[in-house]
Amino acid sequence: MTKYVYFFGGGKAEGHKDMKEILGGKGAGLAEMTNAELPVPPGFTTSTAACNIYTERGGSLPEEIEREFEEGLRKLEALMGKKLGDSADPLLVSVRSGAKFSMPGMMDTILNLGLNDQSVEGLKRKTANGRFAKDSYRRFIQMYGNVVLEINKDKFEHELAAVKKLKKVVADVDLDESALDQVIARYKEVVRKETHNDFPQEPLAQLKGSRDAVFRSWMNPRAATYRKLNDIPHDLGTAVNVQTMVFGNMGESSATGVGFTRNPSTGAREFYGEFLQNAQGEDVVAGIRTPHPITDLEKIMPEAYRQLREFTSLLERHYKDVQDFEFTIQENKLYMLQTRNGKRTGFAAVHIAVDLVEEGILTPREAILKVEPSALDQLLHPIFDPKARKAAEVAAKGLPASPGAATGAVVFTADDAVAWAQKGKQVVLVRMETVPDDIHGMSVARGILTATGGMTSHAAVVGRQMGKPSVVGCGALHIDAKGKKITVGKTVLKEGDPISIDGSTGEVILKALPTSDSEIIQVVLGKKKAEGSVIYQKFMKLLSWADEVKKLGIRANADVPRDAKIAFAFGAKGIGLCRTEHMFFGEERLPHVVRMIKSASRGQKGLNLVNELKTKLKSAKGSQAKELKVELLKVQKEYGGHIKEYVTAIKKLEPMQRKDFAGLFKEMHGHPVTIRTLDPPLHEFLPKREDLMVKITTLKQNAKKNKAAIARLEKELRTVEELHEFNPMLGHRGCRLGITYPEVTKMQAKAIFEAALQVAKTGQKVKPEVMIPLVGHVEEFKRQKKIVLEAAEEVLGKDNKDVEFAIGTMIEVPRGALTADEIAKEAEFFSFGTNDLTQMGFGLSRDDAGKFLLYYIEHGILDKDPFVTIDASGVGQLVEIAVQKGKQARPGIKLGICGEHGGDPASIQFCHNVGLTYVSCSPFRVPIARLAAAYAQLEKPVGD
Amino acid sequence: MTKYVYFFGGGKAEGHKDMKEILGGKGAGLAEMTNAELPVPPGFTTSTAACNIYTERGGSLPEEIEREFEEGLRKLEALMGKKLGDSADPLLVSVRSGAKFSMPGMMDTILNLGLNDQSVEGLKRKTANGRFAKDSYRRFIQMYGNVVLEINKDKFEHELAAVKKLKKVVADVDLDESALDQVIARYKEVVRKETHNDFPQEPLAQLKGSRDAVFRSWMNPRAATYRKLNDIPHDLGTAVNVQTMVFGNMGESSATGVGFTRNPSTGAREFYGEFLQNAQGEDVVAGIRTPHPITDLEKIMPEAYRQLREFTSLLERHYKDVQDFEFTIQENKLYMLQTRNGKRTGFAAVHIAVDLVEEGILTPREAILKVEPSALDQLLHPIFDPKARKAAEVAAKGLPASPGAATGAVVFTADDAVAWAQKGKQVVLVRMETVPDDIHGMSVARGILTATGGMTSHAAVVGRQMGKPSVVGCGALHIDAKGKKITVGKTVLKEGDPISIDGSTGEVILKALPTSDSEIIQVVLGKKKAEGSVIYQKFMKLLSWADEVKKLGIRANADVPRDAKIAFAFGAKGIGLCRTEHMFFGEERLPHVVRMIKSASRGQKGLNLVNELKTKLKSAKGSQAKELKVELLKVQKEYGGHIKEYVTAIKKLEPMQRKDFAGLFKEMHGHPVTIRTLDPPLHEFLPKREDLMVKITTLKQNAKKNKAAIARLEKELRTVEELHEFNPMLGHRGCRLGITYPEVTKMQAKAIFEAALQVAKTGQKVKPEVMIPLVGHVEEFKRQKKIVLEAAEEVLGKDNKDVEFAIGTMIEVPRGALTADEIAKEAEFFSFGTNDLTQMGFGLSRDDAGKFLLYYIEHGILDKDPFVTIDASGVGQLVEIAVQKGKQARPGIKLGICGEHGGDPASIQFCHNVGLTYVSCSPFRVPIARLAAAYAQLEKPVGD
Repeated sequence: MTKYVYFFGGGKAEGHKDMKEILGGKGAGLAEMTNAELPVPPGFTTSTAACNIYTERGGSLPEEIEREFEEGLRKLEALMGKKLGDSADPLLVSVRSGAKFSMPGMMDTILNLGLNDQSVEGLKRKTANGRFAKDSYRRFIQMYGNVVLEINKDKFEHELAAVKKLKKVVADVDLDESALDQVIARYKEVVRKETHNDFPQEPLAQLKGSRDAVFRSWMNPRAATYRKLNDIPHDLGTAVNVQTMVFGNMGESSATGVGFTRNPSTGAREFYGEFLQNAQGEDVVAGIRTPHPITDLEKIMPEAYRQLREFTSLLERHYKDVQDFEFTIQENKLYMLQTRNGKRTGFAAVHIAVDLVEEGILTPREAILKVEPSALDQLLHPIFDPKARKAAEVAAKGLPASPGAATGAVVFTADDAVAWAQKGKQVVLVRMETVPDDIHGMSVARGILTATGGMTSHAAVVGRQMGKPSVVGCGALHIDAKGKKITVGKTVLKEGDPISIDGSTGEVILKALPTSDSEIIQVVLGKKKAEGSVIYQKFMKLLSWADEVKKLGIRANADVPRDAKIAFAFGAKGIGLCRTEHMFFGEERLPHVVRMIKSASRGQKGLNLVNELKTKLKSAKGSQAKELKVELLKVQKEYGGHIKEYVTAIKKLEPMQRKDFAGLFKEMHGHPVTIRTLDPPLHEFLPKREDLMVKITTLKQNAKKNKAAIARLEKELRTVEELHEFNPMLGHRGCRLGITYPEVTKMQAKAIFEAALQVAKTGQKVKPEVMIPLVGHVEEFKRQKKIVLEAAEEVLGKDNKDVEFAIGTMIEVPRGALTADEIAKEAEFFSFGTNDLTQMGFGLSRDDAGKFLLYYIEHGILDKDPFVTIDASGVGQLVEIAVQKGKQARPGIKLGICGEHGGDPASIQFCHNVGLTYVSCSPFRVPIARLAAAYAQLEKPVGD
Repeated sequence: MTKYVYFFGGGKAEGHKDMKEILGGKGAGLAEMTNAELPVPPGFTTSTAACNIYTERGGSLPEEIEREFEEGLRKLEALMGKKLGDSADPLLVSVRSGAKFSMPGMMDTILNLGLNDQSVEGLKRKTANGRFAKDSYRRFIQMYGNVVLEINKDKFEHELAAVKKLKKVVADVDLDESALDQVIARYKEVVRKETHNDFPQEPLAQLKGSRDAVFRSWMNPRAATYRKLNDIPHDLGTAVNVQTMVFGNMGESSATGVGFTRNPSTGAREFYGEFLQNAQGEDVVAGIRTPHPITDLEKIMPEAYRQLREFTSLLERHYKDVQDFEFTIQENKLYMLQTRNGKRTGFAAVHIAVDLVEEGILTPREAILKVEPSALDQLLHPIFDPKARKAAEVAAKGLPASPGAATGAVVFTADDAVAWAQKGKQVVLVRMETVPDDIHGMSVARGILTATGGMTSHAAVVGRQMGKPSVVGCGALHIDAKGKKITVGKTVLKEGDPISIDGSTGEVILKALPTSDSEIIQVVLGKKKAEGSVIYQKFMKLLSWADEVKKLGIRANADVPRDAKIAFAFGAKGIGLCRTEHMFFGEERLPHVVRMIKSASRGQKGLNLVNELKTKLKSAKGSQAKELKVELLKVQKEYGGHIKEYVTAIKKLEPMQRKDFAGLFKEMHGHPVTIRTLDPPLHEFLPKREDLMVKITTLKQNAKKNKAAIARLEKELRTVEELHEFNPMLGHRGCRLGITYPEVTKMQAKAIFEAALQVAKTGQKVKPEVMIPLVGHVEEFKRQKKIVLEAAEEVLGKDNKDVEFAIGTMIEVPRGALTADEIAKEAEFFSFGTNDLTQMGFGLSRDDAGKFLLYYIEHGILDKDPFVTIDASGVGQLVEIAVQKGKQARPGIKLGICGEHGGDPASIQFCHNVGLTYVSCSPFRVPIARLAAAYAQLEKPVGD
């Protein structure tokens, strides 16, 4: 027969600490402490299974559980020698919920249960403390009325305030017994009015009512939402703990408090907490009276304090983790009411984990699992001064896209950002949405704020990539970019006005708040010495343990040497993705890029024709040769100008690219550097179609005067129209560009090999990996590979001995994944572009998904944003298929991932499980990835 | 040892008709005729294998093949009792190529080989015909010079013309021997000048040179392109036939001709062909002299004619197909030079196949395979009067998107099309590209012509769907839609000017040409009696045979009753796709649709809030209830207007949809009708963003006067901006609409069931199938299914007995295919939307792919346009996965396809092989699909 009720008390418990699933965290803790013979008031725990049965039955329990519950109560009454609600010497109990995970939104606590009009008098007599007895009763009515009878809290507070006013007192503790009698009478009247019933006087009915309220609260919407957000299954259920009351409100020799065995904010090894004398549980957290620091307890109740230190140290060693505990002192006697592993900040998590190893409590492997990988984020992003932050008013809230705090002057365009930054100003770039040619502005801004877009919009992705605090999709902002102003509610901000954004919370504050680089970043950037930073050392220590465990390689996505340097400092062993086009937006480059684009179509066509004719000419004779020569002249006449433009622009770009690549190779110290050939559609580099149309319409108001400008813009519009796409995501991009414009691939490949050769000649090892994007068909890859190999031979010679290189592809098109066997025969490595694979596999544009994706997640259609955590059961199948087919066709093929998922712990676990070689993520996420990879190896799911 | 040379002659051949692979079509035919003891001049065939060896070796043959070849020649010389090029009595031969498939672009024929300065005199003596001998020699030099020595044909023509001018004669036959001597001398000079060598006099060198030229021509670019376009493998190779010359140019008792055993244009059972007296092979086709109808031969050479009729009838029965033959009569003796199955029009194919069955020559199954499914197209589309067509000048050429001929007045907008049509004018709608709200214009136009877009652009797809002749992507058109004119070269066309387009060829003609509905369509539309149409009867006969064979079901995509009626008449057994939104563009509907869209976001949100509050209110008590009521009033105040707009618009649409559906059910006579819920992104129904921006900019030139208009447009722009998407293909569409706007799904489901009930009550069976589009996750389907089931219950009652219905989904998102097992647990049928599956699986937007897809196909990166024929090896895998998983989860699940591929014969074969239940295609392709499905069952690949 299944057991539903577990007793604890008298030095022995039926449960223990590993029964969280059944007893909840609190119940398991109480059992464990009881078994350890700590002073725990006896009681019993009704299991989570009972909760599930209650829910399934639509709000009732079967007879046998009711019987077991009543037996538990009888056992408790026997042990305590009292009866629940006895009018002479009542047993009073608390009722508390306790699920496997601590969870806000559920009914929490009812104290003093068992009191009624008779037993309150018994308590008064027994304790010889009328005020205490009446105070306990009015608290009980209030708590029960609120949580079980669902009466608005304010109704009670209103009556309490009325009596205090009547009695002309300020604090609750100043109400005497008769005043409390009035409060009780008024409370009972409230209950009568709201429920059309009297306050229940039957103690067993009170107890069962409270128990059932706990069960019901498991399914209330707030709790359900919380579980959804935190990936907690709905069928865990909650346990209910019924425990003998002890009273911290029995005068000055009594107290109640909460604490941590170490500082949960910084991780410092210090006893940490607060207490109140003559108070009951909720008073400490309610903030009505200011509690004292726990260390003060030593002076007031030295023996209780000594015991508390002893017991909690014991618990910390026992649980091998920092403990978050609750206690009550009743007339100088200490009772332990709860212990559990304490929640902590990322800083504290790292600090404590490393300390516990040094103290011999944990092994390094155990320490790794004490730090949630994503918690490392907090250590890396700038932060607001906590006090200033608390005082500031939040004007609006968007999506917390890239953590950290930023403050600066509002600017509305990338150019303005650069201009202001050059004058030494800190700016926050505010845009409706960002686009690739905002990159220069984004790179100088302290933070990025957009009114539209989701967690994976351009601003969000680039913000994270750059490690810039970003808040996106902040709909409350009305941005007038032309007028250079933002309206938020009734406030209007102009260019230059101060603004602060918190990328960890999504909050927007309309004033300047002080921020700074995190300490670890300061060390990484060389602004601070490693020796001077305790947190840096502990951080690196933890990661070195992770490295010993993990099997997955970790690389970074980096486009410029500065990012590569940071990545390397964070422990990246290579670059998994360099987006060559990100370099195209540089001020001195863009004009050549635009020139190249405008001449590309006709320039490449001309080049092709010329090459074709020249090849034919080689084997032509007599009149045929003559005809070919005439044809060649004609083609040269028609296309010569375009060819010249095209080739000249490309020639200008080559040395610039070469320099970038050489910088990356140097910073990576011989680790592989994966460079992707040009990927985005060319129109991204040109003005927007609609903007040109509007400009032309405006200029036409004075057509005569603006004739030249109109002609120029109309020409530009024609180019833009030619390149215009309905679905750029599925358009002319990736290797499709390199195939139609082979000159561009050739230039990039040459620049890569020239840079590699240059660095190799300095004696440093280089390992370039050329990566062809958006391959859906093996023929695409073959054609691009041929061009790259030709460039390699041209630069490195036929019997190249200087540079070890590889040519591979991104797998980001579903068809590429499905035909990975064919592609692997040609490609030396795959890198999964899971951003695009998700977009195409799911049929979701991440720029547009905001319109319904949030709705999907809120309504449980999707569990998670598939752009944040890889959709293992759907899109993940494509990865699995490609891994399997790829390995089959080329055993030992190198397999990586370079999508946004590469920095997400849950996705990293997927990558580990599916058998990838490495993950590549933004430099700032490298530490998280290292830790998550260790988690994966240790088979611990993140978020658990 | 492999045999490379096959002899034929003396009543016996080493090959036979089934050796096309080795001997080519011509060689196999010559062998077969020789074996049948028909009068075939003896010779020998060098096999296709030799060609492949020649190509692999880079242009030479191994010694043993050369030896075998020379032995063949010796054997021929022995049989004929003459020696090649003998100066007394020379053996002369022809050299002809002959691949498995007849193929333009390859070297065709060299006649009179073996002639040189000596042997020509021998020939003269032997035939006592100097003119004949010299004419044969000059022809040989010209042919050899052109095809073997690669000298431009014009060089010879120039000399021939010069001598004719000198001799003052017009026709070649009027040149006498001495004139021909001059021609020969001049020809030899041409050869000397162009090749710096004398014309080769050594007969064996002539022979081998010709043979090698044939082999080389297999790999020339024109032939390679032709093979690519026609799916002929490159490694088939060509054979070379060396055959004893017979002469049709030995005076008036000699002749040469070509013919067909039946009319290849109409299929009529009549002897068909042409001949010339005193002429050699190429004269008949060269068009220099006008040949005589073959029937005239009966009078001139009755015995030869009798034999020819006898031999060709024999061959037709032997080959069980219409024969295309070549013959030569040398001094009243008939020789057969070639026979092969004749190419024919679609009309003729149907006619002949059915006749051959009736004549007892073919079985119905054999007859099916005589008609290429796609050839049926010709029978269904309107055609130009052939004479008028031939005389007209082609001004431009686009892509032949939807076959058939259309002529009419140029109009530039859909509204203009309607206006002109209402005045009884025939119009051709000319657009840069078409969009969904052009549908009303397209439906009244005779044809559609666009300047951009590919074979699967909107215009092309809808054109085919509607059976409208369409030419798309005609880049030579410069369309000024505002100015209402087109410029083509130097011609300018205004609105109302006549234009003609041929959707079978892509040709555009700038004048009116007479057209008409095809005869079969006339019968189907009831304009002509079936009994009066021979072709209709034969067509239906053939299809009835196909139906007996095929296993695949055939349905049609039809949105309106008229299309359903046509589909049914063509034999569709159900509708596989009704696109409900196509009905939204109707004139009386669009305003309500727009109203619905504009109010949808806030209207649905308000409705959701109201419903939520009302649900809560049901179980609320006391003060909580009061608070909820206040909240409800607030929500109603804020959203009431939007809710009203939204609900009213939806209510207006419901009866209209109901009427449409009822019409479809009626026309389908109890066969299943699959109706898809709303699919396209809502912005497709609104004006374009950039157009509004330009309009506003223009109005702002007089901001004061236009204040109201500006305000109105700016409001509209805000809605459009809200709905704007970067990648609409991957955006807020399909079931995502139905999930965020459940009212719309509900309305459509109710309209479907109400219509079904209404028709069912008339006693007719109805089988609605509700299809949810764009499902990528089973949860999406579950939510939509719930709404549909609720609507069903509401309309049909709890124990519905009136209407048998099913709820299923489209599989068009890769993730949907990958998780088909989960989806099949919920869905009763799948319909593969292979358009979108291709777009997403390939990462190709069909609206944008034009920029590189053509390049891909031209350069062999892709074999075929994946939007025309399903990419079986890539995207096809997704279909296979979904079929397998779907059947596993729900044995007996109904599986269909409703993408464009459903009407493509090769794709239909894929569907058959992969195990689908049915294909659905446009009504006009139903016959093709029926035939292709029979092909698939008979395991004959189409195009073979």
